[in-house]
Amino acid sequence: MDIMVGIIMGSKSDLPVMAEAAQALEELGVGYELTVVSAHRTPERMVDYAHSARNRGIKVIIAGAGGAAHLPGMVASMTSLPVIGVPIKSSNSIDGWDSILSILQMPGGIPVATVALNGAKNAGILAASMIGAFNEQIGRNMDAFKQNLKEKVIRSAEEIESKGWKNSLPK
Amino acid sequence: MDIMVGIIMGSKSDLPVMAEAAQALEELGVGYELTVVSAHRTPERMVDYAHSARNRGIKVIIAGAGGAAHLPGMVASMTSLPVIGVPIKSSNSIDGWDSILSILQMPGGIPVATVALNGAKNAGILAASMIGAFNEQIGRNMDAFKQNLKEKVIRSAEEIESKGWKNSLPK
Amino acid sequence: MDIMVGIIMGSKSDLPVMAEAAQALEELGVGYELTVVSAHRTPERMVDYAHSARNRGIKVIIAGAGGAAHLPGMVASMTSLPVIGVPIKSSNSIDGWDSILSILQMPGGIPVATVALNGAKNAGILAASMIGAFNEQIGRNMDAFKQNLKEKVIRSAEEIESKGWKNSLPK
Amino acid sequence: MDIMVGIIMGSKSDLPVMAEAAQALEELGVGYELTVVSAHRTPERMVDYAHSARNRGIKVIIAGAGGAAHLPGMVASMTSLPVIGVPIKSSNSIDGWDSILSILQMPGGIPVATVALNGAKNAGILAASMIGAFNEQIGRNMDAFKQNLKEKVIRSAEEIESKGWKNSLPK
Amino acid sequence: MDIMVGIIMGSKSDLPVMAEAAQALEELGVGYELTVVSAHRTPERMVDYAHSARNRGIKVIIAGAGGAAHLPGMVASMTSLPVIGVPIKSSNSIDGWDSILSILQMPGGIPVATVALNGAKNAGILAASMIGAFNEQIGRNMDAFKQNLKEKVIRSAEEIESKGWKNSLPK
Amino acid sequence: MDIMVGIIMGSKSDLPVMAEAAQALEELGVGYELTVVSAHRTPERMVDYAHSARNRGIKVIIAGAGGAAHLPGMVASMTSLPVIGVPIKSSNSIDGWDSILSILQMPGGIPVATVALNGAKNAGILAASMIGAFNEQIGRNMDAFKQNLKEKVIRSAEEIESKGWKNSLPK
Amino acid sequence: MDIMVGIIMGSKSDLPVMAEAAQALEELGVGYELTVVSAHRTPERMVDYAHSARNRGIKVIIAGAGGAAHLPGMVASMTSLPVIGVPIKSSNSIDGWDSILSILQMPGGIPVATVALNGAKNAGILAASMIGAFNEQIGRNMDAFKQNLKEKVIRSAEEIESKGWKNSLPK
Amino acid sequence: MDIMVGIIMGSKSDLPVMAEAAQALEELGVGYELTVVSAHRTPERMVDYAHSARNRGIKVIIAGAGGAAHLPGMVASMTSLPVIGVPIKSSNSIDGWDSILSILQMPGGIPVATVALNGAKNAGILAASMIGAFNEQIGRNMDAFKQNLKEKVIRSAEEIESKGWKNSLPK
Repeated sequence: MDIMVGIIMGSKSDLPVMAEAAQALEELGVGYELTVVSAHRTPERMVDYAHSARNRGIKVIIAGAGGAAHLPGMVASMTSLPVIGVPIKSSNSIDGWDSILSILQMPGGIPVATVALNGAKNAGILAASMIGAFNEQIGRNMDAFKQNLKEKVIRSAEEIESKGWKNSLPK
Repeated sequence: MDIMVGIIMGSKSDLPVMAEAAQALEELGVGYELTVVSAHRTPERMVDYAHSARNRGIKVIIAGAGGAAHLPGMVASMTSLPVIGVPIKSSNSIDGWDSILSILQMPGGIPVATVALNGAKNAGILAASMIGAFNEQIGRNMDAFKQNLKEKVIRSAEEIESKGWKNSLPK
Repeated sequence: MDIMVGIIMGSKSDLPVMAEAAQALEELGVGYELTVVSAHRTPERMVDYAHSARNRGIKVIIAGAGGAAHLPGMVASMTSLPVIGVPIKSSNSIDGWDSILSILQMPGGIPVATVALNGAKNAGILAASMIGAFNEQIGRNMDAFKQNLKEKVIRSAEEIESKGWKNSLPK
Repeated sequence: MDIMVGIIMGSKSDLPVMAEAAQALEELGVGYELTVVSAHRTPERMVDYAHSARNRGIKVIIAGAGGAAHLPGMVASMTSLPVIGVPIKSSNSIDGWDSILSILQMPGGIPVATVALNGAKNAGILAASMIGAFNEQIGRNMDAFKQNLKEKVIRSAEEIESKGWKNSLPK
Repeated sequence: MDIMVGIIMGSKSDLPVMAEAAQALEELGVGYELTVVSAHRTPERMVDYAHSARNRGIKVIIAGAGGAAHLPGMVASMTSLPVIGVPIKSSNSIDGWDSILSILQMPGGIPVATVALNGAKNAGILAASMIGAFNEQIGRNMDAFKQNLKEKVIRSAEEIESKGWKNSLPK
Repeated sequence: MDIMVGIIMGSKSDLPVMAEAAQALEELGVGYELTVVSAHRTPERMVDYAHSARNRGIKVIIAGAGGAAHLPGMVASMTSLPVIGVPIKSSNSIDGWDSILSILQMPGGIPVATVALNGAKNAGILAASMIGAFNEQIGRNMDAFKQNLKEKVIRSAEEIESKGWKNSLPK
Repeated sequence: MDIMVGIIMGSKSDLPVMAEAAQALEELGVGYELTVVSAHRTPERMVDYAHSARNRGIKVIIAGAGGAAHLPGMVASMTSLPVIGVPIKSSNSIDGWDSILSILQMPGGIPVATVALNGAKNAGILAASMIGAFNEQIGRNMDAFKQNLKEKVIRSAEEIESKGWKNSLPK
Repeated sequence: MDIMVGIIMGSKSDLPVMAEAAQALEELGVGYELTVVSAHRTPERMVDYAHSARNRGIKVIIAGAGGAAHLPGMVASMTSLPVIGVPIKSSNSIDGWDSILSILQMPGGIPVATVALNGAKNAGILAASMIGAFNEQIGRNMDAFKQNLKEKVIRSAEEIESKGWKNSLPK
């Protein structure tokens, strides 16, 4: 499977959140790589990563970071590939607002595709949808994924309707 | 030029903001269409738009809305294409916070690629970068665009350094 | 007892919060139905629910959702019945602000009657008050309910005044 | 036309906002009355208004106020009728947050149906929808109103598509 | 000891917070009474309390409430005595912001002396300072209280300086 | 007329806001003095002011400041008199949030009686109510002031009811 | 005069704000240079600037940026000099919150000395105080500057006290 | 080792946070002193501390405080040394916003170098960088510290890449 998505994060402590992006990509049949690149502690490594990604066949970069989260925007400044930013509610973040705003509010010219706070799963799905727009197999995987979401909701609705809500509350 | 991007907005009053997405796509050589689709006033029209987009050759949808901005997320729920959401600081928005949060904070399974408040220009650039990851010509246009951004900054730095900052202040 | 209120929620995980709406309606003698309808995962099911509610005799819809909470507003866009929205502080919500703003800040033309964060109990009472304005028995139930609230406060005041506050603190 | 809606506001300076509720009710064929009642400056008048409303045939009360906005909640505490609260961004309000939170966040037992900041038009429509759930003529007026909203959006979409967006920008 | 301060709260569940006001008054030698008065559940009781306070010899009222906290402002509207408001971070409050804003942001003409979130201790001290401005004994008690605060800080500084900070960390 | 209230502010630019405190005190028959004392630019002057106030016969201090507003809290730390803080939305303030929080959120032991943003008028009224609790004449002035507020509201209500709201809108 | 402070900003449009840093340094007798360096548009230029600053004799860097403001933090990551960050309320900023949080909330290991929103004047003074701690002449300039601040406040206090506040209001 | 940094905090309860500043300074070879100074409970002690610091050889003051945090700004008003402020999320703080804003938003003329919420470690590093700009040994220590940060990130990246992310998740 070709590696088409690069997942990076600012610190190893972000891995439990960012692992959901990798899981989503596996589920959707998209090849990826995953590593740690810190904007503030390894700026040169970040430059290398951003500059080489396109030539290595990467189609989308997913970058997660918390607090004053500069990694997604800085990578976006150094590649013409789309960059998806995942704001992380890390231990040094103020309820996630700093992470969100420092990823979302990029200046004109340098967009970052921002997803919800801790939304790494959605970052993986979004990356797959970008690739699926050009790749038929992955497009079909996306459709099956959506169908699956729908069926789960319908099953849970049927269960509540048949058992009654009082019997459906978590114990 | 094939139409590869669909730009939609919740109200004609959003046009002055959303026009910047169209301008960016023109500058980057990407074909697009643009119209008004309201999640709340024309829900059936929104369903039709979302369901037909992929088959009409669209690769990315850019959706802008303000206040309780449901258009981007609802369209994303009905297509497997990537959807870029533009939060608009409309007249009924509370400093843009409602627009941002109701676009960004999508539940697991249904991502929206959110850009900055009123960031329609960046939405256009982001759409082009998604396409440029697969289309060489548009990829080259993206590179040229970035080079251009850089040169403008360098020219403004040179101007301030040669004229002195006191002579560079706006009159 | 006629079913006059429809309670829906975006996910089964919202049931512990939304159950309080059902409990309030039972207490106030108002018939209701309750199920799961997701704006983002079952958009067609949502359309059907909204379009059929009035003809099935429903007088008010109560819709709860968290994060980018589009269910109440989207249902309101597809029915002329009053829709009460319950913002839910779900696991993916930023302290509830996203849930509140994406329900409350509806555009002109499509109101949602929003209650407090996690205020499903109040949603049930509000639905009963709307029906009680036209239905004498339910109106009387409302009056009795209010009288009961008052008496509880007076009893707790009397208890503190007679026992002294130091003996009234929780152990 | 029977008076079925009572519109009240905390200060005459709120009239330009609250007038939109009256206009919406006129458009939807619902009788109403409108006056000034201040929670803080005329508390006794507020008590009388709330206590007498139901017997005077009122079915819904719309109350607007700004800043520490106590009028909607206090009226709701003294009537079993539904009360719609309109948070007003008055001159002494902090971007409307105080008005919203002091109306929305009512304690369990005393709901206020809150609409968007300055959303008096939606308050009028919401009141009409409550009445229209029981009154066929007003129900039909609501349907016609929604149809009208839809047609306006479709006309504006057609206009932009036929003229092109560049010719549709405001001069 | 004359009763000069009335402490009221919206719900018995507020007692653990509000008890600190009573404790502070005891420490400062000021007589007080304490009870439960709910703006929303016992509005008539609130009116009686506010109207009778001055004649019963009360000099200051301390009122605590959470969420859409109307008690302090409503009492202030019905007495010419100073009212101190204590915003409470109750279970239904959004991090306390609703409690603070609905107490603090009173309209022109009806002030509430607001203290910090859950700051009932400071409410007691503030009430004592108001009385102490006219009552010499209580003024002296205030001075002694302040001196005591200072000495505690100086002792803790001396302790850290003599033991070293590493030995002063909590175990 | 004895000087019983000291009004201070951090900068002469705060005078247009703080003048409303002086006007309210004049209206209510309370003697006052007014000057500029900056916590950050004249800390020694602030110490002198706070230390001497009680002996000069002052009963209440009103202190206004904007941004990181330390004046009210610092004065409160150096006197046993009650201090009323007026958060000012100065040019360097972020919508007033910094002014409010740095005045309101005082630590246990050192209360500041905080009023609404730019609420200097209410600060004057609050100071008068503190004095009026002990001074009969000023107590009566407070009652007359409240009666006057009520009558203005009733007159504006009568005007709207007799002229109709359409004729009562501002031109 | 040796150049000891480097002032950089993300865009020429930040010059009117950042010019106040230069003015403060001139007033305090500290040599400086000023230019434009964009983190997102000229990342390589930023790397060069940060890497060479220390060897060129710079003692402090002042960096201003707005929105998702990465310049101060990224420069701090690539130099061991102290970096002062100025959050700018630029046209694409949400009331300045994004600028503040993306500069202030740096991760452990990479501090940025953040000043108030648009506080470039204070950035200049802070840089001078850092240098003045080691340089006697600049230390004396700082003392004179503080003395001057104090005298201005005292003069404005005297003016208000002698003319009366009514004659001191701005016309 | 000369004492060049003074660390102060408003309360002994701030010690666990502020200890990280001391640890960072030890690691970077910078001499320091540490004590408790309360702006509100020991204002005279604060004045003495601020006035004497420069003459005692201190080059930078680090001051931490929570809630309405006046200590850093008040100390800055009384010394020409640079003051680093550490906003502390103390038990009486509203998610840290009050601490941040009352330290950061200082008026023109009196800067405080603010670091992240609870960022005492960064305060220590920042103090060392100020001193290291003039002191070669400490400058070299800073460079080594940065190198160390980088190497830790690279090691954690290598570990994840070699073990695979699934084996790198915390157990």
